[in-house]
Amino acid sequence: MRALVMKFGGTSVATSSHLRRVAKRIIQTRRRGLHPVVVVSARGDTTDRLLRVASQVAARPRGRELDVLLSTGEQEAMALLAMAIQDMGWDAVSLTGAQGGILTDENHTRARIISVRPDRIRAEIGAGRIPIVAGFQGVNGYQDITTLGRGGSDTTAVALAAALGLGLCEIYTDVEGVFTADPRVVPKAQLIPRISYHEMLELAGRGARVVHLRAVEIAKKYQVRIHVRSSFTEGEGTYIEEVGEVEKGRVVTGIAHEEKVAKVTITGVPDRPGVAATLFQALGQRGVVAGMIVQSAPRGGVNDITFTVAVDQSEEALEVTKEVAAELGAAGCFVEGDVARVSIVGAGMLGHPGVAGAMFGALGRAGINIQLISTSDISISCAVARSDLGRALEVLHRQFELEREA
Amino acid sequence: MRALVMKFGGTSVATSSHLRRVAKRIIQTRRRGLHPVVVVSARGDTTDRLLRVASQVAARPRGRELDVLLSTGEQEAMALLAMAIQDMGWDAVSLTGAQGGILTDENHTRARIISVRPDRIRAEIGAGRIPIVAGFQGVNGYQDITTLGRGGSDTTAVALAAALGLGLCEIYTDVEGVFTADPRVVPKAQLIPRISYHEMLELAGRGARVVHLRAVEIAKKYQVRIHVRSSFTEGEGTYIEEVGEVEKGRVVTGIAHEEKVAKVTITGVPDRPGVAATLFQALGQRGVVAGMIVQSAPRGGVNDITFTVAVDQSEEALEVTKEVAAELGAAGCFVEGDVARVSIVGAGMLGHPGVAGAMFGALGRAGINIQLISTSDISISCAVARSDLGRALEVLHRQFELEREA
Repeated sequence: MRALVMKFGGTSVATSSHLRRVAKRIIQTRRRGLHPVVVVSARGDTTDRLLRVASQVAARPRGRELDVLLSTGEQEAMALLAMAIQDMGWDAVSLTGAQGGILTDENHTRARIISVRPDRIRAEIGAGRIPIVAGFQGVNGYQDITTLGRGGSDTTAVALAAALGLGLCEIYTDVEGVFTADPRVVPKAQLIPRISYHEMLELAGRGARVVHLRAVEIAKKYQVRIHVRSSFTEGEGTYIEEVGEVEKGRVVTGIAHEEKVAKVTITGVPDRPGVAATLFQALGQRGVVAGMIVQSAPRGGVNDITFTVAVDQSEEALEVTKEVAAELGAAGCFVEGDVARVSIVGAGMLGHPGVAGAMFGALGRAGINIQLISTSDISISCAVARSDLGRALEVLHRQFELEREA
Repeated sequence: MRALVMKFGGTSVATSSHLRRVAKRIIQTRRRGLHPVVVVSARGDTTDRLLRVASQVAARPRGRELDVLLSTGEQEAMALLAMAIQDMGWDAVSLTGAQGGILTDENHTRARIISVRPDRIRAEIGAGRIPIVAGFQGVNGYQDITTLGRGGSDTTAVALAAALGLGLCEIYTDVEGVFTADPRVVPKAQLIPRISYHEMLELAGRGARVVHLRAVEIAKKYQVRIHVRSSFTEGEGTYIEEVGEVEKGRVVTGIAHEEKVAKVTITGVPDRPGVAATLFQALGQRGVVAGMIVQSAPRGGVNDITFTVAVDQSEEALEVTKEVAAELGAAGCFVEGDVARVSIVGAGMLGHPGVAGAMFGALGRAGINIQLISTSDISISCAVARSDLGRALEVLHRQFELEREA
């Protein structure tokens, strides 16, 4: 019997009735003649609750103990889901990350999977039991519990599918699939039935939250198709897969955005080699992730560097930048907190010059000032005032004809 | 540096401030030059909460999944306690039952410890870290999580002390130690400074909840002294240890009681060999624990059997008894739910005839009717009406002079 990895997110198992609904869905799959291998996240807001408790007990909880704490969320969910399935007359068995063979490196709270050894999972399938594996967690070489960072359950699911030699991984979530823009902000956003790994990586990297970036990377590497679907409806969802060039109907596939962005600027930086490296290495060491980075052309032997960070990292970013500014003898630095980023993504733009011009033109006609621009081969991002974000999404969605069905 | 096992119960770590207080206490021990090995229970009412959630998801959750679920309670507590200690500048490391080397049999929800292999604990001590071990849980030969049943954290603590070759195990709880009677019911109850394993086993077996029965059994077997103390005060507490005969000042050491007892009676049972075995084996198979068992002298070839059970097992007990009654051709059976049991315990009564008489006399003078009597070598138990329990405890406490200091 062929196996199928089915991953359910935290909102899909938040309450007892949600859990029972998910159990039914798993059993349906079993009845259809596939053997489900289930990956489950912590229920509802469990992870946030545990983080809150940790912050009450210690000012800076260490990663190893955070992992021991947070991993209880998935362990609770997997036991309850196994019970729900058993209660409906089918055999299930819950497995921790360690039991599921998810072996990771030693970087607590953001471990990377080194290898997957699904021996126990295979044995349970062989015995006719439905394995329910904890997402988000693994075990390192010291037999200590690790966690994979936010969105890690998607990564667990895809890595398991790859290790089991399966070509498909289902990711059940609280939305219908991947949309041309966030449907909560752009009501006319359309479901994307198929999207390439490359495009999905760009969308995920620029703010789309449906599937985690690393999961898509692994899927691409091992050629696992990801089927993103709703836990609550029977919709078609989105396939993330290799899409041939010929099939690309659209220049732009989707629009991603990040709402809470801050812009940090360091002015009067001496124009000499290694300066940017000094700044961004210092930021990286403090865990600050810079998004867009723009360096002005030098005038009078100095230039300005501006970069974006998530708002909740802006204080830390400013602190580090001030230290570096003093060290480099720069003129000064400041932060602006009311910025948003909007990005258009599409493999189709590779062969279509003028996409950037069309984007900037649409924003300009709408009276939206572009604060920063950065591009990759299949995406263009603009920083705009946060108050302009909704309108920017709307005009771009219309400009690139994303409202019509694909 | 000598190690010392310190076990903290659920109420001792219920809130963040409780956790921090316990962390300070552990660090004090470390400062005194002992290396603490900490065992911790699930916080507050976590276990009850998890059981409630399980009952919402499945009618009869299976033991294996219950163990996966319940073990998260101790895992949460151990991580938070390690964080609290680290936050105070000391090095700690939390360990699951499996990591702590607690190997058990395969009886989920009531596993027994087969062996303890504290290699990892020894290594952590060697590295200067304070190990915080999850109580109540272990791992079986399939690497599946098991739990030891209610009160199992005491068992973990004493088993660890024994495996580490230590002569002492501290059990911190929400009371000052072991008392001559439950101080919530008998205000004049006195702290018992020292009590023998044998007496403690009788008290624990007859309703005293301070230390778990199995923990005392292991302590007796491996000659580990248990020091029962309050987490909240600096009182002297109670030592449970080998006490020489010479030292016994009192005939009766303490009084235990169980408040919620039911009495099941089966009447007109044929007086032939094997009848009692049939009944109590059937009860045992259904998990019903009979307390006192009394069989009347036969008249006319039949007799009556009466036994006590906890009130919450009385329905199940009656059901089983009815089945057995039909099978044996007994006259009938019935249950009375408003019973309590009071037991006097004391190794001193071995050499003192007349203790039983003194007990029955005291109850009789107080107008308390004795419904059932059973005895062991160092205890005498009486079933009485539940409404008589408070007065029974009071008159017996006075009768055996337990109000004066030991």
